[in-house]
Amino acid sequence: MDSLRAVFTDIGKAIRSRRPLVHHITNYVTAGFCADAALAIGASPMMADEPAEMAEIAPQADALVCNLGTIHLAQRDALLAAASLAGRRGIPVILDPVGVMSSSLRLETAKAILALSCVTILKGNAAESRALLSLDGGGRGVDSASEEHPEVLARALAARYHCVAAVTGAVDAVSDGTRLARAANGTPYLSRITGSGCMTGSLMGAAAAVAEDPFYAALWALTCMNVSAEEAERISRGPGTFRACLMDALGRHDGSLLADRFRGSLE
Amino acid sequence: MDSLRAVFTDIGKAIRSRRPLVHHITNYVTAGFCADAALAIGASPMMADEPAEMAEIAPQADALVCNLGTIHLAQRDALLAAASLAGRRGIPVILDPVGVMSSSLRLETAKAILALSCVTILKGNAAESRALLSLDGGGRGVDSASEEHPEVLARALAARYHCVAAVTGAVDAVSDGTRLARAANGTPYLSRITGSGCMTGSLMGAAAAVAEDPFYAALWALTCMNVSAEEAERISRGPGTFRACLMDALGRHDGSLLADRFRGSLE
Amino acid sequence: MDSLRAVFTDIGKAIRSRRPLVHHITNYVTAGFCADAALAIGASPMMADEPAEMAEIAPQADALVCNLGTIHLAQRDALLAAASLAGRRGIPVILDPVGVMSSSLRLETAKAILALSCVTILKGNAAESRALLSLDGGGRGVDSASEEHPEVLARALAARYHCVAAVTGAVDAVSDGTRLARAANGTPYLSRITGSGCMTGSLMGAAAAVAEDPFYAALWALTCMNVSAEEAERISRGPGTFRACLMDALGRHDGSLLADRFRGSLE
Repeated sequence: MDSLRAVFTDIGKAIRSRRPLVHHITNYVTAGFCADAALAIGASPMMADEPAEMAEIAPQADALVCNLGTIHLAQRDALLAAASLAGRRGIPVILDPVGVMSSSLRLETAKAILALSCVTILKGNAAESRALLSLDGGGRGVDSASEEHPEVLARALAARYHCVAAVTGAVDAVSDGTRLARAANGTPYLSRITGSGCMTGSLMGAAAAVAEDPFYAALWALTCMNVSAEEAERISRGPGTFRACLMDALGRHDGSLLADRFRGSLE
Repeated sequence: MDSLRAVFTDIGKAIRSRRPLVHHITNYVTAGFCADAALAIGASPMMADEPAEMAEIAPQADALVCNLGTIHLAQRDALLAAASLAGRRGIPVILDPVGVMSSSLRLETAKAILALSCVTILKGNAAESRALLSLDGGGRGVDSASEEHPEVLARALAARYHCVAAVTGAVDAVSDGTRLARAANGTPYLSRITGSGCMTGSLMGAAAAVAEDPFYAALWALTCMNVSAEEAERISRGPGTFRACLMDALGRHDGSLLADRFRGSLE
Repeated sequence: MDSLRAVFTDIGKAIRSRRPLVHHITNYVTAGFCADAALAIGASPMMADEPAEMAEIAPQADALVCNLGTIHLAQRDALLAAASLAGRRGIPVILDPVGVMSSSLRLETAKAILALSCVTILKGNAAESRALLSLDGGGRGVDSASEEHPEVLARALAARYHCVAAVTGAVDAVSDGTRLARAANGTPYLSRITGSGCMTGSLMGAAAAVAEDPFYAALWALTCMNVSAEEAERISRGPGTFRACLMDALGRHDGSLLADRFRGSLE
């Protein structure tokens, strides 16, 4: 894992030194938590989703995070405008298709963003992934009921949408269509606070802004979140102190530590 | 209080085992805190308020929480659409009429939701309750200046709107028009953080989704929040650590403990 | 500093005893944190930004905080309506022109509010201040890259817009065009959580609601936030516990302590 150590160390250092501006078009539920997570790892978050200012805001960013968690019609317009601009300028785009199995508006918006061929990393749970692959079943609301075969879903999404796909679950899977990583870090505590998935998307944005290879950006972000959660769990007394300790741990992220703690495989 | 112990235990266990999906149409100030509170007790929160997706989202839910805290015109449409759907399908609806004494839009929206005859539990402070009863006086902004006679207000609201009414104050009152409960748990700390009322509404949504009797669902939620707050206060050093400790305590809720700690009366 | 001690003590006590209603039209990222900060110091926050209810809501407030952090077109209408009403009724208005260097919508909205001659305290970082003075350069996104000469910027803003101007940076500067205060309290930790600037704006709103002199209201708010942050830093283990400890410290604010800890100058 020496190369993983080097890659993870470089990503972490580059985020801290370059302070990438991560433009979020995201839900109002977890926006504050996502901004805090981005700041904790050394990035600079900006949340802006008024369509009228996308032409000016989007080109300034080093990465764009598109999260459909509380989508509105006006926000859909902002998403498509910003994603299109980002794609034309080579700004990495992260798509977190929250709840696409639960509404046509979400599913159609996600597919419209994907059709722009601008998405660098597509991150979803099993139910969201199945919806994007037009497979049946899997979830209600925004949580996934299906945990099977994340690596199959990741490979299929990557092939279908020509991007890096990260499918989260008890074991996360990351694929760019050729390579596959499995990552088994994390704790069930992450599902006891809101926004752990959204925050991982913010970390992916920061990492993709500085990393040469989005496959490793996705893996770094998952590992950073999950290893930080493992650390936080040890000193938490419940979900409230867990959230505070998680932010503390994100603020101490270290590439060598992440590589040491990484439990998974690369093929 | 043996029957209360049994009822409270059943509600808490059912939330953990059934993980009810609680659809929130709520304000952006406390949405993250409400989602965290719902997750802490074992429910599955979903926030969605785009009118265009209500026809698909609302029927999936096990309960609907309508909170008027930062109402917008589009959100009013979503509230009415979702509440109407929930009513027709027998999905419990919680109405938290935040600030109805302060704006016609809020008051008219609350009355329009109530006119759908879908509201299962109506929860408000004294000023909000007075406004819904067309009584004078009581508050500015979103906080109540009036603390008198919560049980009178609760009985009147329940009779007027044919629902369970929970009126919060130093002593909370819950009535379904026939029965009346007084609940004196809690701490002034709850008014030193934002969203304690909103979070109680989320807890009511989770409880109403699983309880046979919404009167006890409302009482369980108030008691769970207030007893958790009492626990949190003992180890807090101010409102910041109180919030974290409150979420921790919510995550440990236990029906027997809640029944033991309950300070109030049932008639 | 005996007079500063008296002024700071009076402001703190008046906030606690009068519980001013601080109406926020603000961003959804930090709204919950701002509400918590206002509650911690003893004020009563209200967030409301639907244009249709501004005519009823705005006149109820003791202060109005206008924050452009996630501006939308409808919110711009609410900002102008509420600021105009506040100005006509003598309600203090705080303007936090978040990101005005990054979008025309933000810059034009800020200038339109300033043109109403209602702004009591204008608070921004160096980049935002330069944009409002039509000077080149300074920042991307919502963070400032320029730290030079805050006192020059503060004097220029105060003269140009006939208000108290507070320019934040490593050393904050406050001017009303005649007087100048420099304030060197604070910690870099404040830039590692989201919303420290927004929360300072909320504190300014509460202070301006009760203080006779908005120059001291601005200085009290900056000092309260920065001294609380210094206290929080000593017992924090990272940005997550820092946020909780900061809210705790805000809840204990004391005029004598703030005056004792104040590091700066008045001229």
